[in-house]
Amino acid sequence: MAVKNPVFEDLMASYDEGLSHSGISGERLAKRLHELSEIGFTEVGGVKRPGLSDEEKKAKELVKSWMAEAGLDVKEDGAGNVFGRLPGRDNGRKAVASGSHVDSVPNGGNFDGPLGVLSALEIVEAWKETGYIPEKPYEMIIFTDEEGSRFNSGLTGSRAMAGEITEAEMDQLRDYNGETLEEVLGHYGSSISAFKEAKRDVSELEMFVEVHIEQGKKLEQADQPVGIVSGIAGPAWLEVEFKGEAGHAGNTPMAGRRDPLVAAAELISKLPEFPGEVSETAVATIGKLEVLPNGINVIPEKVVLHADIRDIQEEPRDRLLETVQKEAAEIAERREIQLNIKQNTKIQPVPIKEELKEQLAESLRKFGIEPVYIPSGAGHDAMILGRHIPVAMLFVRSKDGISHNPKEWSSLNDCVMGVHVLKDFLEKMMKS
Amino acid sequence: MAVKNPVFEDLMASYDEGLSHSGISGERLAKRLHELSEIGFTEVGGVKRPGLSDEEKKAKELVKSWMAEAGLDVKEDGAGNVFGRLPGRDNGRKAVASGSHVDSVPNGGNFDGPLGVLSALEIVEAWKETGYIPEKPYEMIIFTDEEGSRFNSGLTGSRAMAGEITEAEMDQLRDYNGETLEEVLGHYGSSISAFKEAKRDVSELEMFVEVHIEQGKKLEQADQPVGIVSGIAGPAWLEVEFKGEAGHAGNTPMAGRRDPLVAAAELISKLPEFPGEVSETAVATIGKLEVLPNGINVIPEKVVLHADIRDIQEEPRDRLLETVQKEAAEIAERREIQLNIKQNTKIQPVPIKEELKEQLAESLRKFGIEPVYIPSGAGHDAMILGRHIPVAMLFVRSKDGISHNPKEWSSLNDCVMGVHVLKDFLEKMMKS
Repeated sequence: MAVKNPVFEDLMASYDEGLSHSGISGERLAKRLHELSEIGFTEVGGVKRPGLSDEEKKAKELVKSWMAEAGLDVKEDGAGNVFGRLPGRDNGRKAVASGSHVDSVPNGGNFDGPLGVLSALEIVEAWKETGYIPEKPYEMIIFTDEEGSRFNSGLTGSRAMAGEITEAEMDQLRDYNGETLEEVLGHYGSSISAFKEAKRDVSELEMFVEVHIEQGKKLEQADQPVGIVSGIAGPAWLEVEFKGEAGHAGNTPMAGRRDPLVAAAELISKLPEFPGEVSETAVATIGKLEVLPNGINVIPEKVVLHADIRDIQEEPRDRLLETVQKEAAEIAERREIQLNIKQNTKIQPVPIKEELKEQLAESLRKFGIEPVYIPSGAGHDAMILGRHIPVAMLFVRSKDGISHNPKEWSSLNDCVMGVHVLKDFLEKMMKS
Repeated sequence: MAVKNPVFEDLMASYDEGLSHSGISGERLAKRLHELSEIGFTEVGGVKRPGLSDEEKKAKELVKSWMAEAGLDVKEDGAGNVFGRLPGRDNGRKAVASGSHVDSVPNGGNFDGPLGVLSALEIVEAWKETGYIPEKPYEMIIFTDEEGSRFNSGLTGSRAMAGEITEAEMDQLRDYNGETLEEVLGHYGSSISAFKEAKRDVSELEMFVEVHIEQGKKLEQADQPVGIVSGIAGPAWLEVEFKGEAGHAGNTPMAGRRDPLVAAAELISKLPEFPGEVSETAVATIGKLEVLPNGINVIPEKVVLHADIRDIQEEPRDRLLETVQKEAAEIAERREIQLNIKQNTKIQPVPIKEELKEQLAESLRKFGIEPVYIPSGAGHDAMILGRHIPVAMLFVRSKDGISHNPKEWSSLNDCVMGVHVLKDFLEKMMKS
């Protein structure tokens, strides 16, 4: 392998050793980020660890060995979710949990997932080193296949744990090799029946907190290392089909054309105006568009566009959905274009409780960080758990906002600051 | 084969037998259209006869047998172009020529090409039957690979004959199987050297006239069976690349996005306004568009659109090209999007001489047809010859304007009317 993964040296190069205190070690965190980055390392310096792959398994085995060393009681369920339990002073009480995932997108970075997992583990290391024993039990979780690159789906582990994967979906899932979930689980060393048994009463947990890289630029713009997730947006996906009349580009006069691409273009060019009408946090994107037949000299017959519409509150998100559909209908009618809209996905946004955000803000201020509130546009395992129990999320500053890319980067200083804030917050949760 | 090709019965069903006179036979034309339709017949009722394929060859062999029967001296050149010569009273004079092609697009119809070839042949049949001997020699031509489905190019036979295919293009051509021109010609029974020898002094011909289906609706709208092509538009193709900044659809606030698809959409939605600013005949189309990476939840990084811009006059066409490029630049600058424009194709429009259009109009009126003038948006073999010698074209009414489709249809009455007009016109050309 020509390219040497530079994570450790690069992380340490600009590290402020003064941040390693209270049992938290920046060097240990950097080493572990580095060791994980070598599993599924791609030639362009990223990682490829699809859910339920040998690489994801290897990454989990490595973290499990660290978890056991740190004194956690480690278990894995039939969906591949890993749980590490640290007993508290009163084990009759519900556990407080933290974690994330170690799978990646096809050519992903080294922080999305691992940072949350290793931060949750670093807390255990710190408590062990300082002799702190939490009042309640603590659970550290590694969720399986969060990114969804395996089945073109996602959040597989957390959804299996929450019992949100129907039997129909289990039957229908096909991975990138065309294999069924049963076959994939077979290779992984599990089975469909064990996968179903991964369902757990999520309310056994008191709350779940996840540390994650921001995947955006707000913290960078605000010059703050760590921020508070104000809510997790629920995506709604619309498949909008405009069908017009194909024709020869040279022989069809401009007057009387029924060009579906012109109709689609009108919608796309108006789209950026709509989110601001419903809220400050709403977003709307057309990322995918198909033109048929897609020939240079053929007026298209059909255009299918896929709109991704999100907000952290359901009401404005649904109003935005309405606006887009109404506009599409108006355009189609005026241009005599057939319109067909399908709603493929509609996930409820997950609000984050005010009191938890206040607790996070207090912890941030303790470290001299001015709280910045950031809506999470992306889904996370915390979003799944958030339908059942209170959740909270911390974002760590992301260089240039890049993620799902080998260039993904957070400085070690920022990562360690995230661990300190997480630790302070968790210790408050243990006392509450 | 479950589907029986219905061309003959359908053509004859509504035929007015009174149109078969002066040596022209509607039934013969219908039979021949039918026989050609069975070569490369597709299950959905269309034809697949790519240039230089076994099917195109078989179709040419069939027409050659008819040509020989009709008394023509038949030759084929190294590009697969077929020539049938009928001596005139004075063979020292230049020949008057007519013809078209027998290849088709992948699932094409039964009239685009064959109608022009069989009309040119029907003239010979009529002259033979009525004992008419033209003053000048007459040449009937079948051009190879007009549609270009073989090499994703087109007008191969006429361009080879006119010497317009450079050695570089001969080297670069790859067909749908990845084969070189040399390999394709080898299978066909020719060779590169014979292909090069197909180059001929086109000015040996006095003029060329082509009958073709309209591929548009103007004759249908004007309720006329046959019309006059006012000029052949030259297409100019622009490849317009907008490059912005990719990002997560959920995590990237609307403000500050540099979405290249929104920029492209603005251009596409404004495009239909521009042609009317330069002429009544200009057209502009975006038929092909690629979005990268084309993921539902990813703000696109790059959009490449292909604009097809045509007019029958060069000056307004070029002004339209300027307008589109200027608009793209203005949009890109305002939206902070990188712009890169390539011009891949720029073919000179071919005007048709006023005197030839007048002669055609006179012939039409003789048959009670009110002349309708139609710009040909599509390229034709006549466009290639038109750069060297005077050309003329007749369009035959096309049902619903559909072409390049199994549904392509012209009534036999209209087809036969086209032959009558062609014959009258050719006889005037023979006398001039």
